[in-house]
Amino acid sequence: MKKAVIVVSGGMDSAVITGTAKKEAYELYLLHLNYGQLTEKREQKAFYDISKFYNAKETKVIDTRFLRDIGGSSLVGDGAIPESKSIVNITKRTDNDIPSTYVPFRNGIIISFAVAWAEKISAEKVFIGVIEADSSGYPDCRNGFYRHLNEALSIGTKNKIIIETPLIHKTKADIVRLGTKLNVPFELTWSCYQNEDIPCGKCESCLLRMRGFKQAGIKDPLNKKDSL
Amino acid sequence: MKKAVIVVSGGMDSAVITGTAKKEAYELYLLHLNYGQLTEKREQKAFYDISKFYNAKETKVIDTRFLRDIGGSSLVGDGAIPESKSIVNITKRTDNDIPSTYVPFRNGIIISFAVAWAEKISAEKVFIGVIEADSSGYPDCRNGFYRHLNEALSIGTKNKIIIETPLIHKTKADIVRLGTKLNVPFELTWSCYQNEDIPCGKCESCLLRMRGFKQAGIKDPLNKKDSL
Repeated sequence: MKKAVIVVSGGMDSAVITGTAKKEAYELYLLHLNYGQLTEKREQKAFYDISKFYNAKETKVIDTRFLRDIGGSSLVGDGAIPESKSIVNITKRTDNDIPSTYVPFRNGIIISFAVAWAEKISAEKVFIGVIEADSSGYPDCRNGFYRHLNEALSIGTKNKIIIETPLIHKTKADIVRLGTKLNVPFELTWSCYQNEDIPCGKCESCLLRMRGFKQAGIKDPLNKKDSL
Repeated sequence: MKKAVIVVSGGMDSAVITGTAKKEAYELYLLHLNYGQLTEKREQKAFYDISKFYNAKETKVIDTRFLRDIGGSSLVGDGAIPESKSIVNITKRTDNDIPSTYVPFRNGIIISFAVAWAEKISAEKVFIGVIEADSSGYPDCRNGFYRHLNEALSIGTKNKIIIETPLIHKTKADIVRLGTKLNVPFELTWSCYQNEDIPCGKCESCLLRMRGFKQAGIKDPLNKKDSL
């Protein structure tokens, strides 16, 4: 059976890529990183719920809290989480306006672990749910990065591992529609950067999720306010 | 002052790239990874000795012993160190004959940390002492991997960080000659995979080092036998 390592934060995007890999008949090896984010406990619950739902062959949680030391991000306790009250502020971001939630080269680090595990188990692919347009200008979410990285990995790994980024050109609304079509359990996911019980509805991740469901015309099962 | 992160294991190659970066007038940020190798204590001493010698601005040691979990390498305790009694056995290795000392995608992981730190401090470059020809067929030592990786990083990092691999096409003998020319303190380095007091002279790393000094016609200050 062909194998894939799936990077799963516990958010809606990672659930959708897990559903995508499942549909493509991969045996699933789910990888979660604990880098000391505020809502890690809730994210880890979402990770295990998604793993169980999709009958993952194996799960792995890697503790990378040493990233605090490399530092410089509000997601790992170095400053407050920015509240984005207006969607306009998010979409107007440019490449030169990296948000304070940026962990330097976080996706690069995550991918290096995922590739190492994929090499170990002789997997063909690594799936990661990065999105170029919606992802606040993180440079390691750009499509070109992954395109060149795959060329590098075709030389730099014995299994010629391929990074799959099935969401890279999608909007959050596209992802909601795709996930709905694939029967992805959105009720098991967690997106809020701030709270672990009820989504704050104010942080950037909440706003992007809310907008995605709204634009798709689909009710978010985590939104108890029934605002649609 | 322009900055560079240098990946320093404590071996002779990493000392030579530190000397190279120093000569190119970089402010030095030295990074060492403790991935639980047998001789880590000795390697760390070499790392700090080299850092001190070159007056590094900052040093960082990252504990990555979770790599044991990704696993599959005799260097992290999963099986015995292979003794290579014959140089022929080393040089005849092919790409399909990956040695058991291989930690899956180890250089990829190391580089991801180095790039993250470089992003944090706004460094221009990361120096790593990989060698394509002499390095036992590790796929993440191949020049093409770094060439494509640099294209990826020009998109995937805000500082457009460049990985420098000044030794990639050199032999160990070339490195001994270059290091000698740069007055690199070979006496402070450590290469043996097996021992922490006197180099075993049998492990692959010892054999490659011995051959390098011999071919260069230079005495290794760590070789007390004065065999040249």
